[in-house]
Amino acid sequence: MNIFENVESAVQSYARSFPKVFKRASGARIEDVDGNSYIDFLAGAGTLNYGHNNPKLKQPLLDYIAEDGIAHGLDMHTDAKARFLENFQSLILKPRNLQYRLQFTGPTGTNAVEAALKVARKVTGRTNVVAFTNGFHGCTLGSVALTGNSHHRDGAGVSLNDVTRLPYDGYLGKDFDTTKLLEKMILDGSSGLDLPAAVIVEVVQGEGGLNVASDRWLRRLEKICREHKIVLIVDDIQAGCGRTGSFFSFEASGIKPDIVTLSKSLSGFGLPFALTLIKPEMDIWKPGEHNGTFRGNNHAFVTASAALENYWKDDQFITEVREKGELVEKRFSKMADRFGHSLFKVKGRGMMRGLSCVDGELAAAICEKSFEKGLIVETSGADSEVVKCLCPLVISMEDLDKGLSIIEESIKEVVASEEWRAAG
Amino acid sequence: MNIFENVESAVQSYARSFPKVFKRASGARIEDVDGNSYIDFLAGAGTLNYGHNNPKLKQPLLDYIAEDGIAHGLDMHTDAKARFLENFQSLILKPRNLQYRLQFTGPTGTNAVEAALKVARKVTGRTNVVAFTNGFHGCTLGSVALTGNSHHRDGAGVSLNDVTRLPYDGYLGKDFDTTKLLEKMILDGSSGLDLPAAVIVEVVQGEGGLNVASDRWLRRLEKICREHKIVLIVDDIQAGCGRTGSFFSFEASGIKPDIVTLSKSLSGFGLPFALTLIKPEMDIWKPGEHNGTFRGNNHAFVTASAALENYWKDDQFITEVREKGELVEKRFSKMADRFGHSLFKVKGRGMMRGLSCVDGELAAAICEKSFEKGLIVETSGADSEVVKCLCPLVISMEDLDKGLSIIEESIKEVVASEEWRAAG
Amino acid sequence: MNIFENVESAVQSYARSFPKVFKRASGARIEDVDGNSYIDFLAGAGTLNYGHNNPKLKQPLLDYIAEDGIAHGLDMHTDAKARFLENFQSLILKPRNLQYRLQFTGPTGTNAVEAALKVARKVTGRTNVVAFTNGFHGCTLGSVALTGNSHHRDGAGVSLNDVTRLPYDGYLGKDFDTTKLLEKMILDGSSGLDLPAAVIVEVVQGEGGLNVASDRWLRRLEKICREHKIVLIVDDIQAGCGRTGSFFSFEASGIKPDIVTLSKSLSGFGLPFALTLIKPEMDIWKPGEHNGTFRGNNHAFVTASAALENYWKDDQFITEVREKGELVEKRFSKMADRFGHSLFKVKGRGMMRGLSCVDGELAAAICEKSFEKGLIVETSGADSEVVKCLCPLVISMEDLDKGLSIIEESIKEVVASEEWRAAG
Amino acid sequence: MNIFENVESAVQSYARSFPKVFKRASGARIEDVDGNSYIDFLAGAGTLNYGHNNPKLKQPLLDYIAEDGIAHGLDMHTDAKARFLENFQSLILKPRNLQYRLQFTGPTGTNAVEAALKVARKVTGRTNVVAFTNGFHGCTLGSVALTGNSHHRDGAGVSLNDVTRLPYDGYLGKDFDTTKLLEKMILDGSSGLDLPAAVIVEVVQGEGGLNVASDRWLRRLEKICREHKIVLIVDDIQAGCGRTGSFFSFEASGIKPDIVTLSKSLSGFGLPFALTLIKPEMDIWKPGEHNGTFRGNNHAFVTASAALENYWKDDQFITEVREKGELVEKRFSKMADRFGHSLFKVKGRGMMRGLSCVDGELAAAICEKSFEKGLIVETSGADSEVVKCLCPLVISMEDLDKGLSIIEESIKEVVASEEWRAAG
Repeated sequence: MNIFENVESAVQSYARSFPKVFKRASGARIEDVDGNSYIDFLAGAGTLNYGHNNPKLKQPLLDYIAEDGIAHGLDMHTDAKARFLENFQSLILKPRNLQYRLQFTGPTGTNAVEAALKVARKVTGRTNVVAFTNGFHGCTLGSVALTGNSHHRDGAGVSLNDVTRLPYDGYLGKDFDTTKLLEKMILDGSSGLDLPAAVIVEVVQGEGGLNVASDRWLRRLEKICREHKIVLIVDDIQAGCGRTGSFFSFEASGIKPDIVTLSKSLSGFGLPFALTLIKPEMDIWKPGEHNGTFRGNNHAFVTASAALENYWKDDQFITEVREKGELVEKRFSKMADRFGHSLFKVKGRGMMRGLSCVDGELAAAICEKSFEKGLIVETSGADSEVVKCLCPLVISMEDLDKGLSIIEESIKEVVASEEWRAAG
Repeated sequence: MNIFENVESAVQSYARSFPKVFKRASGARIEDVDGNSYIDFLAGAGTLNYGHNNPKLKQPLLDYIAEDGIAHGLDMHTDAKARFLENFQSLILKPRNLQYRLQFTGPTGTNAVEAALKVARKVTGRTNVVAFTNGFHGCTLGSVALTGNSHHRDGAGVSLNDVTRLPYDGYLGKDFDTTKLLEKMILDGSSGLDLPAAVIVEVVQGEGGLNVASDRWLRRLEKICREHKIVLIVDDIQAGCGRTGSFFSFEASGIKPDIVTLSKSLSGFGLPFALTLIKPEMDIWKPGEHNGTFRGNNHAFVTASAALENYWKDDQFITEVREKGELVEKRFSKMADRFGHSLFKVKGRGMMRGLSCVDGELAAAICEKSFEKGLIVETSGADSEVVKCLCPLVISMEDLDKGLSIIEESIKEVVASEEWRAAG
Repeated sequence: MNIFENVESAVQSYARSFPKVFKRASGARIEDVDGNSYIDFLAGAGTLNYGHNNPKLKQPLLDYIAEDGIAHGLDMHTDAKARFLENFQSLILKPRNLQYRLQFTGPTGTNAVEAALKVARKVTGRTNVVAFTNGFHGCTLGSVALTGNSHHRDGAGVSLNDVTRLPYDGYLGKDFDTTKLLEKMILDGSSGLDLPAAVIVEVVQGEGGLNVASDRWLRRLEKICREHKIVLIVDDIQAGCGRTGSFFSFEASGIKPDIVTLSKSLSGFGLPFALTLIKPEMDIWKPGEHNGTFRGNNHAFVTASAALENYWKDDQFITEVREKGELVEKRFSKMADRFGHSLFKVKGRGMMRGLSCVDGELAAAICEKSFEKGLIVETSGADSEVVKCLCPLVISMEDLDKGLSIIEESIKEVVASEEWRAAG
Repeated sequence: MNIFENVESAVQSYARSFPKVFKRASGARIEDVDGNSYIDFLAGAGTLNYGHNNPKLKQPLLDYIAEDGIAHGLDMHTDAKARFLENFQSLILKPRNLQYRLQFTGPTGTNAVEAALKVARKVTGRTNVVAFTNGFHGCTLGSVALTGNSHHRDGAGVSLNDVTRLPYDGYLGKDFDTTKLLEKMILDGSSGLDLPAAVIVEVVQGEGGLNVASDRWLRRLEKICREHKIVLIVDDIQAGCGRTGSFFSFEASGIKPDIVTLSKSLSGFGLPFALTLIKPEMDIWKPGEHNGTFRGNNHAFVTASAALENYWKDDQFITEVREKGELVEKRFSKMADRFGHSLFKVKGRGMMRGLSCVDGELAAAICEKSFEKGLIVETSGADSEVVKCLCPLVISMEDLDKGLSIIEESIKEVVASEEWRAAG
């Protein structure tokens, strides 16, 4: 471990929660150098929806590399890119009746968000962007201005401008529809809200604590955007690629965002890859206006194609995801019943679920205990108060059950201590 | 080609210059789907210093994947990361007497630059950053504020703040040392220059047109930074990893930057990867303060380690690079002699060389003609007036010679037209 | 009139509503060059609380000028300044148990606001400032960022930064206490609200449409500010100097702002003058750090002193103001009763009252008709929908009655037209 | 003095240099409460070009007030305004063949600058503005971003954006024409200079240390602005109204700025007043888009009219100003000869002259000594190193001579000390 302490920057974070050196991983399992095996409910913070080293993706990648397939070609056309474009078009967009142009941005979510911001501002000629409380959109300067988390915002060291913050669905209580504030401010000529270029929203706020926007709220949001020619951006970086029970998180609501950002599980293999989907009429980029060295990761094209071909040709995979999601919900609800609703609340949707604890200390204690028992699981939320369960969607029922049982057992042990019992 | 036109965003750029579909690549050669082979003097805009699919890097990558090595683990420790850290420490930093902590940022150059900006602002508590004319540092909001190119700046759609632009070495003529302006403005309490957190500089400006900062200028810049406790950042994303004749571009000058950004050829294989080197006393990050999903690309760790082990254990490789660099210089000088110094000037250093043409049209015509003859080569500079030669450092003498001959032949044909003759 | 059309800028505004050339004024009366006399319910948008050319202020000014009193001395000490400081201290601050240092900023309200912003940011080391919907704080760049009105904001031509906009009291309906949103966002570490340096608020929003903050809301606002060490700024430029029934508009609520801005009626004579009151412990200015040529207007010191001495030594004046305010309220209520509550609502407090019309057209028609009948009265509000009555506080009961009757008569005539009847 | 210490803000500045309470003033003389008389070479930092309480201006003001002339009418038309407009048009603009629309902004220089910025940004649709080293343009947020002085910039507490700083004439030495840097950066598409909306310049930098732009440099600057459709703004707030030997400081150069800002001596009497002159085709303001309570100070209209009528109907006044200016230059040159060119340099133009001392301590000592001897004179420049002589233009030859002799005597005494002799 010395090399990490002596040479790697202090910025490391997950490495502090799970202080082991890992070596090998497959499916929902990850192994350290000492041969210990862990069930992985973190899964790259939602990057490994198809599991570690999924063999259906791994073999095509090995073949591609072995045959000297292009690894890097900037944004030049390759057969791997063509295949991915065709698959995404035919397996994802067409069946959902969606029309988008695909922009391969730099290979991280934050880069997809930065591209989305730029194009929304170009299209409208406006600068202001509405973002929501507890939203998370990345850490480069344009994205971190959208991000709510003060820990990340403070890191910027400069003012974060051209963003108006409004309350997310439910932020002002169940009975207050927060889109009304947005609408009122738009219609009010002295509200101080500069007519926004865009509204950016997550359907389920991953880092923000698994808050879920209702379909009705999303539809009202879309309607307001349409009426005032505001670009609607859905940031689907964490919630997309099947995580919530459909490929895109917004499918159930019926909205059709103008721009969608994807990354994390898009390559299917954990490879850096990001995509900004843009309605054709908004794709007014000049050549290379937003660029970057790694904006077409061909290895990722290969694995992403394989993921689409193997999992999205029919409904089998997503049906299983939904079933697993219901299972997780059921188990978490039982835990809340068992240990007290004053201590625990179930949050999230699909396979993007969590247990919101009464405070961050409780959540941390549960995660720590779980790790001791062989489960990797992390927290999210403003106070890190949500035990966030982002296990691979392809996880076996056995491992899923085992992982959930570890959480339950850990809660039991943690809550047994005086302190929490008193609070409960 | 239809799929690219119909589905991919209009932002594509290199794909327009080289309208082929590529399939396979090895060393300095790239092949299209019709079996045509091209010599690659673009090399991922400096990303493929070790060539396409370098077998010394490819085999370890294949082995790693085959054995279910970790592909993605956020910033958790892996044996692949440990090995890279050890290699970078022992083969690069130690022999050069450099002390840095390594921060794995999001896997693109722009992300490394954003991290560098943040840490410089944190360390100093200041906001302003000095960047230079013709500098290029990336396209996310923080980086594009540093970037000089108006094409990229205009894409931002918002004001680009907290940056002061000053003239690069040579910008005011050979006899004017532009660091004097910086120094005068710092010492002058009503100059309007807010004391900067950092100065960011490229030793050779890749996108800016292969302008080279003299060692003397760099040393004066470092001295000013030291005297006023300004963080000195060298952006070595394009010029680093051996491109200019040493691992870091600044080695010849003897300066020791406080922060160095690396990316592009760092993985050695064209895989997304970026690194911010930070002097230990400036590594004051809080855990996860700057984060991102892909901040530790394990596949890249594997290939980067292999690159270090194979090419940087002794001087053999870099000696060859210097010799090739001199050859390129000699050939370009001869071309300038032959076709007229009013039309052509040789620019750059090491294997980061180019021919500056009297205007962008001439440069474009030469590149187009070269492509017809089987050479991929691109332009850079404010008016895209520099034919920029960034061929793989491992290129064979035969291919290097052949590529240069194609350029010479292309110039001859282009210049033969009335127009350029008149100008020349 | 030609000279105005040919030489004065198109920016002129009130001159368009009242296209006469005025020559003379006294008390609540203003006279044009043709000898027509108008009752003035605009009164310099609240600048002439003591009427035009109030003889009690005019004579001291004439004497001062005649005796070669200092007209301009930058911020050097004069006997006129000393006298004003003593009067303001003994007649205003001391009886109200308030401790402030007085900063004479540039002689306009916007300058007092800019100074307030600077000192709040200096004291806290933070940059963000919370301002409210429908707030108006001036048109220089720092102030216009706080101002809600899009007409003024659009004039800036640049992004207006470092301000968070939150809903004013009543903005989300009667039952929603909007300070709860502020408090929740402060306590929520990922709300996206950067902890503000200051909150700036008007107790009655003059330009925003005579919206009144309740005492309870103000007290909650003050409490939140205290708990989080946020500077509380009351902008009392329009509502101060007796307009709402007390010298400061916030007196009834019992709050003690950290900073108060005053201007408009402060000189009592319509002379440019502005003041920023700062709690002593926050008066951390370095000498001349915020400066300006006209930051001590000695003519204004003279008239302001006379105003304080004549009107604020006992309660007589303010008691009369309150009685007049009640009269105005009663008359406006009757008008709303008479012409329909669907068309008219009474707004405001003290002598800062208005009739909110169903839309801006109705309000404009009423003002136009009133002007024909010899009354100068203007609108405010986001849609200029409020007929705003800001008559001199010293107005005679006769003129007050006459002016109100003109408004009533004008409404009658305007509403008689088909259109409004239908709406009513 | 207690009242000032106890009640007035710590921001006071001139009051610290001249710790007396002043009571009366006439012409170039100012008197304190103890009856001491001082010659005033500060003159409101250039606000009292026509002297204190000039009887030719005072009588019309007394008459106007006595007759109940309008003191305050927002921007409504008055006969006083009409007369000023006519005078300014016929006595100033027409004879100089200049066409401008007059905008009465808030009554301070900084407000005129803010208005100029806004209109330049509106006209061009751009945001960036070029300002020069050592420039001073005011302290509200828009203006202070243009101002070079770090003391004032630091007061802002936020980033000062949308401004590019370039070197003023002479900043890079006599032989370097700094407009070349501007031109090169405009023509260079990757210079990082966003095409500016405007360039703002002082012909003589008052606060910056009496630096003078050459006519040739100004003409080149104008030419560049014309070629690139950049708005040329001359800030003539301190140097205008006759100070440099012509009404506008730029007359000798022959340039015709697009926008000119005036304030300080414009009212002639030290009353708050400011004006932005805008070429008719650029006067695209919407009504009230930039506004403010005191944007038409009628008392100032009266005195300003009197000043124009008394001093600008023929060349007599300005001829005398030039002669006095030459006298001051001659006397300062002799002082520099006498006390050493290593200690003193003569700077400025017309009656805007100063002695630049080897450092700020020397300048401060001279001013302090002068005050003891009955002369009020202040410093300017980045290090407060220039003894700045801004005496009333109407000063008698006797007082002018006496004041200059006090300076000379003070220098003699100060320089007699060991320290300065050694340096000299």
